[in-house]
Amino acid sequence: MAGKKQQEFVKEITPMEEDFSRWYTDVVLRTDMVDYAPVRGCMVIKPYGYGVWEGIQRVTDSRLKATGHKNAYFPLLIPESYLKKEAKHFEGFAPEVLWVTHGGNEELTERLFIRPTSETIVCDMYSKWVQSYRDLPLLINQWCNVVRWEKTTRPFLRTAEFLWQEGHTVHAEEEEAQEETMKILEIYRQVAEDELAIPVILGEKSEREKFAGALKTYAMEAMMHDGKALQAGTSHNLGQHFSRMFDIKYLDRDGVLKYAWSTSWGISTRLIGGIIMVHGDNRGLVVPPRIAPIQVVIIPIAFHKEGVLDKAKEIKEGLEKSFRVEMDDRDTYSPGWKFNEWEMKGVPIRMEIGPRDIENNQVTIVRRDTLEKFTASMDNLTGTISGLLDDIHDTMFNKALKNREEKTYTTTDYEEFKRIMHETPGFVKTMWCGSGECEDKLKEETGATIRCIPFEQEHIGDKCLICGGKAETMVYVAKAY
Amino acid sequence: MAGKKQQEFVKEITPMEEDFSRWYTDVVLRTDMVDYAPVRGCMVIKPYGYGVWEGIQRVTDSRLKATGHKNAYFPLLIPESYLKKEAKHFEGFAPEVLWVTHGGNEELTERLFIRPTSETIVCDMYSKWVQSYRDLPLLINQWCNVVRWEKTTRPFLRTAEFLWQEGHTVHAEEEEAQEETMKILEIYRQVAEDELAIPVILGEKSEREKFAGALKTYAMEAMMHDGKALQAGTSHNLGQHFSRMFDIKYLDRDGVLKYAWSTSWGISTRLIGGIIMVHGDNRGLVVPPRIAPIQVVIIPIAFHKEGVLDKAKEIKEGLEKSFRVEMDDRDTYSPGWKFNEWEMKGVPIRMEIGPRDIENNQVTIVRRDTLEKFTASMDNLTGTISGLLDDIHDTMFNKALKNREEKTYTTTDYEEFKRIMHETPGFVKTMWCGSGECEDKLKEETGATIRCIPFEQEHIGDKCLICGGKAETMVYVAKAY
Repeated sequence: MAGKKQQEFVKEITPMEEDFSRWYTDVVLRTDMVDYAPVRGCMVIKPYGYGVWEGIQRVTDSRLKATGHKNAYFPLLIPESYLKKEAKHFEGFAPEVLWVTHGGNEELTERLFIRPTSETIVCDMYSKWVQSYRDLPLLINQWCNVVRWEKTTRPFLRTAEFLWQEGHTVHAEEEEAQEETMKILEIYRQVAEDELAIPVILGEKSEREKFAGALKTYAMEAMMHDGKALQAGTSHNLGQHFSRMFDIKYLDRDGVLKYAWSTSWGISTRLIGGIIMVHGDNRGLVVPPRIAPIQVVIIPIAFHKEGVLDKAKEIKEGLEKSFRVEMDDRDTYSPGWKFNEWEMKGVPIRMEIGPRDIENNQVTIVRRDTLEKFTASMDNLTGTISGLLDDIHDTMFNKALKNREEKTYTTTDYEEFKRIMHETPGFVKTMWCGSGECEDKLKEETGATIRCIPFEQEHIGDKCLICGGKAETMVYVAKAY
Repeated sequence: MAGKKQQEFVKEITPMEEDFSRWYTDVVLRTDMVDYAPVRGCMVIKPYGYGVWEGIQRVTDSRLKATGHKNAYFPLLIPESYLKKEAKHFEGFAPEVLWVTHGGNEELTERLFIRPTSETIVCDMYSKWVQSYRDLPLLINQWCNVVRWEKTTRPFLRTAEFLWQEGHTVHAEEEEAQEETMKILEIYRQVAEDELAIPVILGEKSEREKFAGALKTYAMEAMMHDGKALQAGTSHNLGQHFSRMFDIKYLDRDGVLKYAWSTSWGISTRLIGGIIMVHGDNRGLVVPPRIAPIQVVIIPIAFHKEGVLDKAKEIKEGLEKSFRVEMDDRDTYSPGWKFNEWEMKGVPIRMEIGPRDIENNQVTIVRRDTLEKFTASMDNLTGTISGLLDDIHDTMFNKALKNREEKTYTTTDYEEFKRIMHETPGFVKTMWCGSGECEDKLKEETGATIRCIPFEQEHIGDKCLICGGKAETMVYVAKAY
């Protein structure tokens, strides 16, 4: 019975080697992470997927608060005139904003757009709030929904509406804004690597790829299992672009009225797509233990037998003090069916408790990342699980890092580069002359883009991958989601 | 200096006896709870106001999770056709929804509306998710923004966009849906009374006042300081109205396909308005301690003197393990200025630590609710503060209850009722014949409405307040926000 059910489950997920894109869609739908909404490109984040988001929120929010940021809420709807204030920003976002034109039966006097990001409304408010050097720095974050009317969408990775946090800060000094931009990037790195077990490369974006209206954009780039890149978080130093357009000025200690410096930064539900594509396998999800909505699932075996359910409940209550635990005591499904369901859902640790386990004062444990099965004493289970979760995290991180290293190539030869991109997609470390024309040509001819100018520069050669001209900048190039 | 500044502060808040409405506006703006956004009726919730919301979220979310509810996220935008499915629901919400007509430069093929509430989209998804009795009950909640294009707005109390949680559940049996509806109302009561220190009256709404599309609506009603009512939370038994319109059916154990039963319920940022109007005074806010963003503010006195700042930091670190603590060591403001600012912001406990305090191994404490000032030993401060916060909560609750009792009247005489409403606004316990005509007449002639049919019925008389006819139902009548 269990065997048959297992087959049924696995059958429904397309193997990733066969079709990575279908594998992804199968996984997100079959594991109840998400469902398609009736409006084009919109998704419903189902409880299990939202649980992952709550995990990401928790580990991010605590770090932002610990560094002095406070949450606030700015409105969803912004007057049309605001979008036009910063020219590059308008150019970047106007084609994909949604317009509200009517309230009930009445036409609005000015059209409103739904925020695709909130710089315009935030900066407008800041121009009122910031008066003196005593008001600075202003360190505000918001968790909210944004909408971008994208043509091609995929659950989590690119959706018309998505959830994110967007931070917006104002500083008296240029260096402070730069410091803040880097501080946030480091927080994002911690979230990705220390919480989601996703190794990332940190670096600066090229002129072509930077945020519309930013002075400098920094990003963390992660490699998915198929060798493609995912931009997993960005931190922008906005310079004085927005403070000049929105008139954010402060009276300094020296009595002089000065323009302020600002930053903005964000991570989104896109990270959930990253988790799936970095850690998932042909059995389904593998959820990083530190943000997993369920860290341990307890499955009582033969639980009609006396004492089994009581013991399982006792263990659950003990573990719940330290971990997120669920017990699956549904009598409408067989143990084999449950094993497969929780495996597919990627719960880090499965714990089986049956009559024989109880006899031996032990539990049976299966870890999701390696599928290893072993028994552990019922004594000091909290310690055992705690160590195991850390080990699962490390194992997942190292596996992802190994995948990235294996799929990272080095070349400055354009023909070889094309062959790599075609045959064994991955990251290519190469050199770039810095021209936008080369960037455009690269994208047009290969579909790949400069992901970032990494902080850790290496000497790969002296000539530009694309034009062959003199090049001093090392870059990562890859196809991206 | 402190005296002068104090005057300046207080001066800026209109006394509530003079003009309650202006007092409210002064308080929300002066205490940095909120600011007006450029779009009509929209607000920016500033960090201090949002901190209160985070407190409300925390105490509500934990209770919802403890009773088996899980969070999810449904899309902001809903196709026009969905609104028309449930006739009463359409009638209720169509006049106040905002319409999205264009994406970028293109006109949409079907207009989308921004959710004023999510029953339509949620029920549509549920019709896919619910197949078998094994899928029930389905207990989902979401925290999100909603938009209602209201004509008259006031920060927190009635805004075009507001934040809330909306729960949507599906059940196999009629009784289960009713049970759920009541369970949630009890959770809301706990949030209001045990966390926000706001006494509430629980009861059922009349036909005229119930939610558009509901079978029964239950609410909690709170009295504001001026004697007016605020509907502080509602829980709806939707019967089978929505499951029939959206085709939510399940295959029961007996092999028969049946329509399910559903509920929905919500509390919103409106509660923040309630907190202000129940507890606030002429000095500003009084924030209930259990959800206060800052429970204790430490103000070091003469902190240029050796040891003061160190001691204050040591005490802060000790207290931070159990409470939300902030230290105000800004050297740009005088202690007197700070006392007034934190008093205005309603922080429950102010703790002063100066050289003399340290000499005597004590701190000076001022509680915001009673303005009492006393000293406490530095030993076991955690115990002292813990007890004090509980006492502040109880004192605030009892004060609010006393205000409600003093402003609650009993009559079935319509002339006397009108006199009460005019001279001493408050709640009137009275009798109602049950007719909608009487309800309309009451509203038209007095501006007051039936707030609820309380669960705790009393015998006030036998005749209807309005028509004088036979009446068996006791109701609370009041003017409401």
